[in-house]
Amino acid sequence: MIKLLRFDDPDFAESFAHIENRAEEIPADIDTTVRAIIDAVQQRGDAALQEYTLRFDRLDLTAQGMEVSADEMAEAVAKVSADDLAALKLAAERISAYHRRQKQETWLSTDESDILLGQMIRPLDRVGIYVPGGKAAYPSSVLMNAIPAKVAGVPEVIMVVPMPNGEANPHVLAAAHIAGVDRIFRVGGAQAVAALAYGTETIPRVDKITGPGNIYVATAKKMVFGQVDIDMIAGPSEILVVNDGSGCARHIAADLLSQAEHDELASAVLVTSCDTMAKEVAAEVEKQLALLPRNAIARSSIDEYGAIIVADDLDQVLEFCNRIATEHLELAVDNPFDLLPKVRHAGAIFMGHHTPEALGDYLAGPNHTLPTGGTARFFSPLSLDDFVKKSSLICCSPAGLKRLGPQTVQIAQLEGLDAHARSVSHRLDDDA
Amino acid sequence: MIKLLRFDDPDFAESFAHIENRAEEIPADIDTTVRAIIDAVQQRGDAALQEYTLRFDRLDLTAQGMEVSADEMAEAVAKVSADDLAALKLAAERISAYHRRQKQETWLSTDESDILLGQMIRPLDRVGIYVPGGKAAYPSSVLMNAIPAKVAGVPEVIMVVPMPNGEANPHVLAAAHIAGVDRIFRVGGAQAVAALAYGTETIPRVDKITGPGNIYVATAKKMVFGQVDIDMIAGPSEILVVNDGSGCARHIAADLLSQAEHDELASAVLVTSCDTMAKEVAAEVEKQLALLPRNAIARSSIDEYGAIIVADDLDQVLEFCNRIATEHLELAVDNPFDLLPKVRHAGAIFMGHHTPEALGDYLAGPNHTLPTGGTARFFSPLSLDDFVKKSSLICCSPAGLKRLGPQTVQIAQLEGLDAHARSVSHRLDDDA
Repeated sequence: MIKLLRFDDPDFAESFAHIENRAEEIPADIDTTVRAIIDAVQQRGDAALQEYTLRFDRLDLTAQGMEVSADEMAEAVAKVSADDLAALKLAAERISAYHRRQKQETWLSTDESDILLGQMIRPLDRVGIYVPGGKAAYPSSVLMNAIPAKVAGVPEVIMVVPMPNGEANPHVLAAAHIAGVDRIFRVGGAQAVAALAYGTETIPRVDKITGPGNIYVATAKKMVFGQVDIDMIAGPSEILVVNDGSGCARHIAADLLSQAEHDELASAVLVTSCDTMAKEVAAEVEKQLALLPRNAIARSSIDEYGAIIVADDLDQVLEFCNRIATEHLELAVDNPFDLLPKVRHAGAIFMGHHTPEALGDYLAGPNHTLPTGGTARFFSPLSLDDFVKKSSLICCSPAGLKRLGPQTVQIAQLEGLDAHARSVSHRLDDDA
Repeated sequence: MIKLLRFDDPDFAESFAHIENRAEEIPADIDTTVRAIIDAVQQRGDAALQEYTLRFDRLDLTAQGMEVSADEMAEAVAKVSADDLAALKLAAERISAYHRRQKQETWLSTDESDILLGQMIRPLDRVGIYVPGGKAAYPSSVLMNAIPAKVAGVPEVIMVVPMPNGEANPHVLAAAHIAGVDRIFRVGGAQAVAALAYGTETIPRVDKITGPGNIYVATAKKMVFGQVDIDMIAGPSEILVVNDGSGCARHIAADLLSQAEHDELASAVLVTSCDTMAKEVAAEVEKQLALLPRNAIARSSIDEYGAIIVADDLDQVLEFCNRIATEHLELAVDNPFDLLPKVRHAGAIFMGHHTPEALGDYLAGPNHTLPTGGTARFFSPLSLDDFVKKSSLICCSPAGLKRLGPQTVQIAQLEGLDAHARSVSHRLDDDA
């Protein structure tokens, strides 16, 4: 049964802390395990990768080959129904259109001191996308990671996806095909992250690794950060629905459950200013839960990390929203645009009564890779920016150096960096 | 003496690997030390901060207070000469102007399926800037970190700067004043990073920590990444000068030395297609080295990590540039714009014979916080983007949901996420 809370409950802080602090405790030995895997792959390359894949995925890569062949791809795509392909293609087009709007342009301009300044924006050379196997093997995740990379102009997008017992998910391969992924390797876990970060005889080293994964993958990504770039440190998923008493309890309950079915650590919370709505949604959640195929997972998530909070007014609700900085924020109110200016932190905002979160998960267009666990205070959704990098440009004329040189010398001297000062003054002397 | 190399030397790869792999080896026990400091500050707040500051900086914070007062600030600014203040203000204005050009705007628009999509860009609430004390206490670093935060609209910029034995650097405080830093605390090291990441009774928790520091600071920043955002993992500084035989050996030598004087791990490399220039620059480096106040540091850097490489042609040079992905790239050639399109990776590019790197360090405008050690392949200069974050916006109309709902249901079902499908189909049923 979902918890009913009020902000002024004496134990509210404690109840909610249980939800906020739900991120998986990292077992003490996981750092050691992952470090050993990374070191082995860095030192022994393919051989280590093959050993770990045999051990963890029960798959002999020496027999089947590490890379998914063009034939295998074609075979997988042929297995997918025309309707499924059409839906994935529609999603791909919409994701592509949204991310094209994020494009920043290179600029160059000469200022009043006769110094040309600029900012050059270039795609990364090669990107690695981690795609989980098993229960969380989602084609939508392939689209959401590969398409922004391709829109950014990354020439080579490499995907790694574990195939336990050699089984491939045809929808995942079809999504890779649609998104334009260049090469796919059937490896996963910390060993795949290490292979992408350092390269092996078969897998080329990439510049950035994005995509979701289990605690081993997340730990490996954090460890190779600096050697390559990574997207973000993702925790368990969450939704906060804000309601003013308007709308339909059945729809709100369905939205909470769509979050809860992801996994046991997911959190679905409703904050409403209406007592009646709170009770109706609680009842609807129970009713709909019984009908769900993923009932056990959703039940566990709702019982442990679900809550319906009744608030005195919407100001109290918004203050709470900004403190929580949730991944998914649904403004299920009649006038969502009245609230929007007061929302400071959220990964993605779903406005009004006809915008279920699921729409954003698949094909509205914005990325579904979003900051979790309060990190929307400082992290952004995955975007085109993740797949480009900038270089600053400076071109100074003799006249410009004459104008700005003396102050450059001044600052260099006050910092005690005499060679800095001389690199400017030698030129000023010679130009004089 | 600076090494003279050629790409086809049999031991070129080995010689250059010595330069590329010069980043400080992290002592095995540093993780443990830093972890203990972070845990102590997280658990015991100010008390732990005071203990570490007494131990490492020989400064009793309980006596002097942790925060720099308005009076102290005024006193410090009064100590700085009018010329120094004017130069710092000119730098501040130019840095501000450059970073204003990086501003991205919030956008919203309705697409052909009647779905409103958007991207909301907001400044971070509170940012922490780490400023080193001691030998690397540079006012320019304060400007380069604080000004982009302020241009982005960050309401509260907190600076931490260690003051060993209680001594403050007046130029650093004056730069903070000019840049509009809101609060300054006299703490440093891993303990200051921990205080910013978790907050203490006195120091408020921030959303992001930027700024350079020693190996303890860098390790602490990496450890708190995820709890807060950080700027980048910075290694020792470097310059690569590209030359075609044009220009002046005296100037090029001065530029190499301006890099070398930073610290013993800095690297200064010239690649030239001209044998004569190589010899002249080598001689100039020796001559100028003798005159430098920071002679010992620059000598060590030049001997260990300096090199002059003679190349057969500029194509070979550019291939090398892109492999190295250097922090500072100086195109000391007659026609730098001819080469520019072929440069794929560099933190900042200094064009032509009148753009010494020192100009970019202080007041050209672009940020001097740049990716090092080959990370320009994927990291960007510090910029306005570092101090804002984005939220995606989706607002679907009933008509829009009717148009895109069926494919959303389709994808949800192929992913086996029934509750996702139902959150859409319930609405479609009720609207029908």
